[in-house]
Formats: sequence, structure tokens, C-alpha cells
Amino acid sequence: MSRIVYVNGRYREQAEASVSVDDRAFTFGDGVYEVCEVHDGALIEETRHLDRLDRSLAALRIGWPIGREALRLVMREVVRRNRVAHGLVYIQASRGAARRDHGFPPPGVRPGLVVAARSLDPAAIAARAAAGVAVVTVPEVRWARPDIKTLQLLPNVLAKQAARDAGAYEAWFVDRDNFVTEGASTNAWIVSAGGALTTRQADDSILHGVTRAALVAIAGGLGLTLETRPFTVAEAFAAREAFFSSATTIAMPVVSLDGRPIGEGKPGPVALALRRAFRERAERS
Amino acid sequence: MSRIVYVNGRYREQAEASVSVDDRAFTFGDGVYEVCEVHDGALIEETRHLDRLDRSLAALRIGWPIGREALRLVMREVVRRNRVAHGLVYIQASRGAARRDHGFPPPGVRPGLVVAARSLDPAAIAARAAAGVAVVTVPEVRWARPDIKTLQLLPNVLAKQAARDAGAYEAWFVDRDNFVTEGASTNAWIVSAGGALTTRQADDSILHGVTRAALVAIAGGLGLTLETRPFTVAEAFAAREAFFSSATTIAMPVVSLDGRPIGEGKPGPVALALRRAFRERAERS
Repeated sequence: MSRIVYVNGRYREQAEASVSVDDRAFTFGDGVYEVCEVHDGALIEETRHLDRLDRSLAALRIGWPIGREALRLVMREVVRRNRVAHGLVYIQASRGAARRDHGFPPPGVRPGLVVAARSLDPAAIAARAAAGVAVVTVPEVRWARPDIKTLQLLPNVLAKQAARDAGAYEAWFVDRDNFVTEGASTNAWIVSAGGALTTRQADDSILHGVTRAALVAIAGGLGLTLETRPFTVAEAFAAREAFFSSATTIAMPVVSLDGRPIGEGKPGPVALALRRAFRERAERS
Repeated sequence: MSRIVYVNGRYREQAEASVSVDDRAFTFGDGVYEVCEVHDGALIEETRHLDRLDRSLAALRIGWPIGREALRLVMREVVRRNRVAHGLVYIQASRGAARRDHGFPPPGVRPGLVVAARSLDPAAIAARAAAGVAVVTVPEVRWARPDIKTLQLLPNVLAKQAARDAGAYEAWFVDRDNFVTEGASTNAWIVSAGGALTTRQADDSILHGVTRAALVAIAGGLGLTLETRPFTVAEAFAAREAFFSSATTIAMPVVSLDGRPIGEGKPGPVALALRRAFRERAERS
């Protein structure tokens, strides 16, 4: 991840950054995480990310490993030590290390915390957005609470690999009623055949994406008609545009779905406008 | 877990037993595990456990971290170094350590392996079986493949804690059609009102328990009528007996479900007979 990683109170060299084999993230996936974009050295949408971390921890009854203000300082220090101007900061909290037993550990066990950062090449991401990417669909097989940003990510791993195996960049989960829920690591959007910017409502079935929420807020200012409702794969095939959102991809145009071109088979104007508007908004704040 | 833990090729003291923060078990729950009973120093049903490990690894396209025979030697060495006569050996394999990226890491990344062991008090387990335990039901919220023994265990953690919060020992997952799938860390059984030993067929919805399979094999020899099919919570309430199975609990009598007594509210003869027969079978082999 990064050359210097914060692990449970210490800044460690990558090669020395380790956790106990009894850490419950390792044995049970018993933890949560956040990925926050770094742009021009600034932490983008930091407040929303920390609010969501708080919600995730509360949902699982895990305490904050350190205070919120202390975490903000650690995030900045990890970004600074790794000299990240453009990239991401990764935060992972677990229920701590204790002898393996499914039930919660005794009260004295402190939650674990890892914070890492790494640079991403903004030119490479911009080039990908200019070209657009391919997406494949996979069956929705995740547990019932993808709205909590937990480490239960094996289905996401398998979905992302299925995309890669098919020469695509992302996979969209599709439920038994043929509705798209979201992507393996992104939220899914279309501009419907009727012209409405459409993305699923923030229910239990999807992660409440921070970038998704920001784009929803931006859409009104751009005069776009927004519908927050589930959409089917058939609607996506018939859509004018499709794209997905996440902290590191912002709004990434989708030019094909399961090998069929979406719209004109090139990045659409709405996705590109949202992308620009998000960047301008971040630079103003 | 144990005083000495095997971690990726080395036997480490517990306090030094650590893995990289980039291990995919830690970041994605991208791994599998086995728990094998140790009884009188012998590894019980070892072949079935290693066969299931092979099936789990293959299902996720993870290679064996070391060869099967080498793993057998490591298991014995960990048991020996921890002086475990009665207890368990724990085996966990992951897709290895690599920079965080959902898709599979490059081919050169070696799978990770942790093997630990610890003693359990057979008298305490026998006393628990003699008294019987309480179970509560919880909604089935897991991902679609509990038949693969993965580290996607957060729902199991929350279920086990829900049981503990209710003063019970285990939680049984119940699907939307009111059928019991299995327990948080055990397979579920009843002796129905009609007298049939009943446990769910080994489909995608449950772990294919090694102890479950052994008990199925034993049941015929005891002259029991066996039905492998789903049973409902209502059937469990009306059952003559209920119990659950796992490597460390064998057949554990359930005396109440959601606070309602099962049968006569005490351990039933079938569960106790299966428990004895399992032990005798293990001692013969």
C-alpha cells in the first residue's frame, strides 16, 4: 500500500507493518474500512468519510480505535510521510486481537487501526475516463448488509476478478429480480432512455457512497433530472449513458455492459459533466 | 490461540505471530480455514478436513500454500509444540499478501498459511453436553456460499453475539421461508415429532460439516431413520430433540430454542447416543 503505514499506534515501514494473527479482521473479517481520495494534498470529502466510518463502527458495536480528531491527524501524517499529492488514504478498523472465539472479545480488547496511503496517477485515471471502461454483470451473492462498509469483501473480490477475466474493469451485481445493486467497489448509475440520471436509493442493498452522495448533490445544480430508484439490466442496455462512482474513480464512464455498447459506445456528456463539476466543487472547498 | 503458532513457514511465539497488513485475509477476508479436533493427541477426521480445505481453496482459485503432506506434518508439529492432548488445531489459508486491489494478485504471490492449536477441557464440554444448551434464532443474512469455509464470518460473529446477549450458546440462521439453515459455527439437527433424525441436505446454504457427515454415516448403524431435508423453526419447536454438530462440540444437545423448551427440555437420547458413537468410532480408527 504505502511505504509508511500506521499500525495500532506506530508508524512502520511497509515491510514491518504487521498485525497479530489473532486480529479479528484477519480471522473473521470483523472490521470496517474507508478509502478517501487525496487531491492536491487535500483529503476529499473527509467529513463524510469519517461520518460513515462512525456509522459502520456503530452498526457493528466496535468502538473508535482512537478519537476522531486523532484519526484526522494520523491520516494527514500518513499522507505527508508517503508524500502523496494525488492518491488515496486507506483506513481500516477491526474489533481488535483476541483468542479466536466468534462472540465479541472482553471489554478490555482495544479495536485495531491501520492507516495507509498511496499515490495514484491522475493522468492515467483521466485517460481511462476519456476512453470509458467495460463492465460485466454478476449475480448478487453478498450478505444482507452491503450498506455497512465491512471487510466482508470476498464476493467483491470474485466479482472484480470475473470482470478482469472478461477483459472488463468493473462488475455490477444483479439481484434475483434483475435489478443492478452496485459495482464490486463502486456505485452504479445510468442516464435512462428517458434522460433521467438514475441511481439506486441508498437502502440496505448498497454502500452509501460518499462520492455518490456528492454527485447527487451536484446533479441538481447542473439542472439534471434525478431518480433514485433501482434500475434493471435491460434499462442499462437501453440507457443513453452509464457510469460508476467511487472515491478514486469519481464518475467513470461505462461504454459497454456484458460486451454490448451503452449509448453511442463512448463516454457520455452527463458523466463527464459530473466528473468536472465534482472536481471544481472539491477545489472550491 | 496457542503459545506457538506456525506462520508462513516459521514457528513463532504467540506474541510475535503476525502477518502483513497486506495479507488479503486481513483486508478482504480472502481466505479459508479448518478446525480439526484433537482427541488423545490424534487428529480426528483429518482426511475429511483436508479434503474440504482442498475444495474450499479450489472454489476460490487459491493454491495450496504448502503441500498436503507438509501441512499434515505442520499440524502435528503445532499440536506437539503446544502439548495439546485434547483440543483443536486451526488452519487458515489466504490468497497471500499484495498491494490492496480487489482482483487477484499477480501469479508470484504465495498463499498465506497460519496453523495454531489449543487445548480444550473435555470435562467441561462433557458437562455442557450433559446439561444441554440454549439456542436462539436469527435471520439468515450471509452471502450465497456458506458451503465454502471462508473467512466471511462477520454475520456469524454477530449471530453468536446475539446468542450470548440472550443468554444462549448458539444461534441458528433462519431463511425467509422459515427454514433453519445452520448455526453460527455448527450444523443444526432435530429428531422430528415423527421420530426421524433430520438435518438439512448439504446444499449451497450450509457448510458441509465434517462432523455432520460422520454423524450421518453413524446414524445408519444405530438404526435411526435419517431425513436430509430442510426443517422449519415450527418443526424444531415440535421436535422430540434438537442438537448441533461441529468438530469441537460433536453432537451438542439443545434444550431450548428462543426460550421455549425442546422435547422434555433436557438432552435427548439420540443426541447422546450419536455423541457416544462418534467417540467410539474415533477411538477405533
